[in-house]
Amino acid sequence: MPQSFVVIIAGGRGERFWPLSRRARPKHLLDVVGSGTLLAQTLRRVARVVPPANTLIITGAEQERALRAACPGLPAQNIVVEPAARNTGPAVALAGALVAARDPQGTFAVLPADHVVNDVSAYRRDLEAAFAVAAAKDVLVTLGIRPTSPVTGFGYIRRRDRSVRAGGRRFFRIDRFVEKPPLAVARRYVAAGDYLWNAGMFVWRVDHLDAALHTHAPELRAAFVPVRAALAAGTERGVKAALRAAYRRVERISIDHALLEKATNGVVLPATFDWDDAGSWAAMGRHLPADPAGNRVSGDGVVIDGAGNVIVSPPGHVVALLGMSDCVVVQTPDATLVMPRGRAEDVRSVVAHVERLPAGRRWL
Amino acid sequence: MPQSFVVIIAGGRGERFWPLSRRARPKHLLDVVGSGTLLAQTLRRVARVVPPANTLIITGAEQERALRAACPGLPAQNIVVEPAARNTGPAVALAGALVAARDPQGTFAVLPADHVVNDVSAYRRDLEAAFAVAAAKDVLVTLGIRPTSPVTGFGYIRRRDRSVRAGGRRFFRIDRFVEKPPLAVARRYVAAGDYLWNAGMFVWRVDHLDAALHTHAPELRAAFVPVRAALAAGTERGVKAALRAAYRRVERISIDHALLEKATNGVVLPATFDWDDAGSWAAMGRHLPADPAGNRVSGDGVVIDGAGNVIVSPPGHVVALLGMSDCVVVQTPDATLVMPRGRAEDVRSVVAHVERLPAGRRWL
Repeated sequence: MPQSFVVIIAGGRGERFWPLSRRARPKHLLDVVGSGTLLAQTLRRVARVVPPANTLIITGAEQERALRAACPGLPAQNIVVEPAARNTGPAVALAGALVAARDPQGTFAVLPADHVVNDVSAYRRDLEAAFAVAAAKDVLVTLGIRPTSPVTGFGYIRRRDRSVRAGGRRFFRIDRFVEKPPLAVARRYVAAGDYLWNAGMFVWRVDHLDAALHTHAPELRAAFVPVRAALAAGTERGVKAALRAAYRRVERISIDHALLEKATNGVVLPATFDWDDAGSWAAMGRHLPADPAGNRVSGDGVVIDGAGNVIVSPPGHVVALLGMSDCVVVQTPDATLVMPRGRAEDVRSVVAHVERLPAGRRWL
Repeated sequence: MPQSFVVIIAGGRGERFWPLSRRARPKHLLDVVGSGTLLAQTLRRVARVVPPANTLIITGAEQERALRAACPGLPAQNIVVEPAARNTGPAVALAGALVAARDPQGTFAVLPADHVVNDVSAYRRDLEAAFAVAAAKDVLVTLGIRPTSPVTGFGYIRRRDRSVRAGGRRFFRIDRFVEKPPLAVARRYVAAGDYLWNAGMFVWRVDHLDAALHTHAPELRAAFVPVRAALAAGTERGVKAALRAAYRRVERISIDHALLEKATNGVVLPATFDWDDAGSWAAMGRHLPADPAGNRVSGDGVVIDGAGNVIVSPPGHVVALLGMSDCVVVQTPDATLVMPRGRAEDVRSVVAHVERLPAGRRWL
């Protein structure tokens, strides 16, 4: 019987969550909200769907060491390092090669490592439904999130009314994928009711993915044919060399652009679980418990005469805010960031600034 | 020939400069502005007037260890620990006892440890002029600072037109000492032109001080008679016991209240040196170099899109402010303070708050 797999894409350069995240410790390795790192929480959710032997992680060299230490429950060979960051297109093609080497008719989910999901039962039910339909039909499943506000930072998916029914769920045919829209457009999408957020969660059978890549992204697919051969041959050195060669060939492209916007067999399952990408310190802060004045603190923080602040500090280090409101303070042993909550999307500019300091790389 | 002495009062609970200052490291042991700690800068200035053998420091038990380490150039017995903090009245009486034991007709200056003075030559000239007049005449000299703004945090001295001339300088008879005034009153004082700030710098002959205490503060004087006897006997244990007994007897009172407001032989010398008590983080920050946007940084600080900030951080720890203006950030290895510059006078309330935390004393 064909098997199910999960491939977790654990990339990121650690910029939006500086100074707590660094190049060697991107967002999914942060332990700020929930229990354990976001990656550990993702692994716990996934473990209810597939066994560790069928759980793979694709990551980058800078964070490999920290990531391996964070995943003691996974077989070492299930953590695969990309020779270069080339966005999700090549990562998904690599995921396909890895799964095909284990089961040429396997079904697999591509999942981000660093999202916040609390309803793990609904998450499991949705994933299992997606696995079932992908195993049975030639469809490329995207899990869609019902938009709660006109966010401009996500891509949107417009569904059709036509759907594939399976296991009591409706998988809607996809009309189109839309890039991050301007605010006015995002408002229209939310009002329309037939748009969903694209959160980067996909499920498909590896042979169906391969056929779709063959049709819509032949160069991307071709770059990974030698990787498949090397995986079949089974020598670690051969695989590494093939990977280096493949990543020299491929362009930097998302799987949305490379494949999904062109494919005609896409379907979307509206997710029934809560979901947040917690993509900034302000967003992450909303998952911390609030005091009556709306201050949210992880660690030893004290707010005097102030409301709506977010403090993230290691235990044993006290951060005291006097007369400050709606600010974010992130404290680490060698770097501190202070900003209004409304500037949380601009942390990358701080990282760029710090990088230009003499010896600035010590803080990256 | 009678000798000159300097007695530096190095007290303080380290509250206004938390978190960098602590109970064991009050303001005068901070190394933020100028070269070395404020105490070291005071000692360097004083060394141009009297030799180290004639320089004494009166301090408290909590900071004794750090203070002794900070003053390797002073004879160990010149650092004297008060058994309890009782304001400047008892400290000056103790200073008198210590000087009298060395020279019953010695002249001594009482100087704070933690002020900022840059014009060391004028400082020396003013002190030497004060020493000269105090050695020659039965006057109690206060150095007065010409007010530059209607500060409400200092006491004021109203001078008369009558003066004592000595060494080409005029020492004005004092009409009265005034407590920290409300703003409207302070404005009147500054406009009037015959008011000076009382910065706690005094010069007198020890026998003249003793006579004045005998007249105006007999209980305070009496409490220290056994200390004088013990100092004459010369056993360390006897001195310590006498000190403990004296400090049990005396009330908490400033030398202004206890003596100077009542004395009729007070004179004031308008100081010719620059002076700042740098009594808050905002005031201290003004002595740091400013960038074109008026940001003042000690250590590794970075300001992006912000003006008028003060950052104090240890080297190696970067503090990044994004979109913040007119804020003070003080960073230490175990505590961080963030506040608007306008709240810098209220740091004591933060200390009180931190003290009430579970295990809050670790940060004091």
